[in-house]
Amino acid sequence: MIHSDIKEQNQEIVLAERPLGVPTEDTFQTNDIDMPTPKDNEVLIKNIYVSVDPGMRGFMDKGDDDAAGAKYELNQPITSRSVAQIVDSNDEHFAVGDIVHGRFAWQKYQTVSVEDIEKVDPDLAPISTAVSMLGVPGLAAYFGMLKIGQPKKGETVVVSGAAGSVGSIASQIAKITGGRVIGIAGSAKKINYLENELGLDKGIDYKQTDDMQVAIKEACPDGVDVFFDNVGGELFDAVFANMNRHGRVAICGQIAEYNADNPPTGPRPMHKLIKKSARMEGFVVFDFSAEFDEAKKQIAEWYNDGQIIYKENLIEGFENIPSAFIGLFKGENIGKQMVKVGDVKNC
Amino acid sequence: MIHSDIKEQNQEIVLAERPLGVPTEDTFQTNDIDMPTPKDNEVLIKNIYVSVDPGMRGFMDKGDDDAAGAKYELNQPITSRSVAQIVDSNDEHFAVGDIVHGRFAWQKYQTVSVEDIEKVDPDLAPISTAVSMLGVPGLAAYFGMLKIGQPKKGETVVVSGAAGSVGSIASQIAKITGGRVIGIAGSAKKINYLENELGLDKGIDYKQTDDMQVAIKEACPDGVDVFFDNVGGELFDAVFANMNRHGRVAICGQIAEYNADNPPTGPRPMHKLIKKSARMEGFVVFDFSAEFDEAKKQIAEWYNDGQIIYKENLIEGFENIPSAFIGLFKGENIGKQMVKVGDVKNC
Repeated sequence: MIHSDIKEQNQEIVLAERPLGVPTEDTFQTNDIDMPTPKDNEVLIKNIYVSVDPGMRGFMDKGDDDAAGAKYELNQPITSRSVAQIVDSNDEHFAVGDIVHGRFAWQKYQTVSVEDIEKVDPDLAPISTAVSMLGVPGLAAYFGMLKIGQPKKGETVVVSGAAGSVGSIASQIAKITGGRVIGIAGSAKKINYLENELGLDKGIDYKQTDDMQVAIKEACPDGVDVFFDNVGGELFDAVFANMNRHGRVAICGQIAEYNADNPPTGPRPMHKLIKKSARMEGFVVFDFSAEFDEAKKQIAEWYNDGQIIYKENLIEGFENIPSAFIGLFKGENIGKQMVKVGDVKNC
Repeated sequence: MIHSDIKEQNQEIVLAERPLGVPTEDTFQTNDIDMPTPKDNEVLIKNIYVSVDPGMRGFMDKGDDDAAGAKYELNQPITSRSVAQIVDSNDEHFAVGDIVHGRFAWQKYQTVSVEDIEKVDPDLAPISTAVSMLGVPGLAAYFGMLKIGQPKKGETVVVSGAAGSVGSIASQIAKITGGRVIGIAGSAKKINYLENELGLDKGIDYKQTDDMQVAIKEACPDGVDVFFDNVGGELFDAVFANMNRHGRVAICGQIAEYNADNPPTGPRPMHKLIKKSARMEGFVVFDFSAEFDEAKKQIAEWYNDGQIIYKENLIEGFENIPSAFIGLFKGENIGKQMVKVGDVKNC
């Protein structure tokens, strides 16, 4: 198949306006676009799986040049980590039919430079995991827990957003290292998932808990040694109040803040950091890019051994990418949110 | 001389009431007390130099069991790091005339267990430095800068409270490691001290600066790699806004908070920690007690080489200990605040 054989109308989804607070359908606009032709060292790809992540919300704000990733431009297509199949190639190293991943535009078909794609090994794990368990979320869990949190055997580890794509893997890695792991999530369904499927020591439903600080204290009678935080805000405060001496806080995400129009305020943590000789550290996975291959291999091994359970929440259809993204902020999903926008063709 | 030869009236200064906000003279009360007699393995000591430190303010609040140090009890003598001379000994390892240091009560004379004292080597540096440059403040500067801040040659280092007992040594250690060092202090006299005596690259008088965030940006065109914070509050925010990727914040003291009745609030730093892959870490010197001897030797060597300049602000008289302590919160002093309460006797 070459690109001229494709009969489907190509489409893109662009950033129509910068959202204030939680994005809505008006944040996005779908346009019909032409089918592009790959130049030298480019390939034409068809999107198969598109990942939507809470952290993308920050890229929708007006840029201040100091974000870890790129900002989205108005009227330009949104980009996100995606898995695609090559349908036409102008590079000898990539063949039609190859599965690749990268940060792709929300377009059904697009040309990309071969420098911006990486091959996916379909034998390692299901190909969608290239942008989830074996992609940024899994790597964030792996490096955030092991390099920043550094749990030791027998320590108490608390993970917020524990049913999410990062938190569920971080929690399980903490269990593998021999920690006592408490997961925080926001529904009975999620708590059941944490306790009965992922095997965490306890799940706490913050939506059903009046005083989270007390709940954490009860769940962690020996205090908290490692806090892997995906949420921030008052939930952070409640866990942080229970930190042990020499505790480590890995700041992975702050979903409670992503839709805040102004920088949020809260109790200053500095005095407690001194009292407890404790540490708070932020990170992005690309800090550890030299170790990606090793980490992917380890996570896939744990997955194939059954030591890590990994779930996807799959929505079908290119036109449903915006609603899948907006749904992230409703806090209802278990596992990594993905959108399946095309089928893999055997070539 | 034995204790029965001492004709002077013994006295103590106790915590008369727990202060709200900044302590006043009413916080303290001076009482006449009896001269104690040392039991086995005790010595009778005469206070020579009493150290007063901002961090003691925290010990005056009602205890919550999670402070790094002990709380003061009402109507009991305040304790602080002090240098004393032995005037009577019931232990073979300590002789009358020996100079010792430890956390002693604000009493002219007192008995202490030999387990709670450490000999001072008068040949290393002036004996008062045993509780300052070679004591907790100097060790906090040394470990906070080298172990937490970890400045690399050519990096930009900002120190708040830079003219104080900890900050002045921390700043100079950062210079020794090859950093570009910016000190923040609160008077023209202090800025002159930083720039012209300690040799820092620049001093910023926060009291004469409308927008500290802009002032830091101008003074640090390459951003801030290491922030050694003694102050906290809005000054923290202004420096933190300028942190570089992989920046390190050593949280040493938070003098802006010590007198706050409620935990202060401020902008949450978490999002920025993620964006910058930055780290905030609190510490107390006792985290590093295994390395004290090595550190003292190194600091004394730098001092005797002239690479570290060290100043004391000396007030005379046992009765002036409270006013010396209260004066710490007026921000007027250069160097370590000490009170000389007695003279060394040659035995």
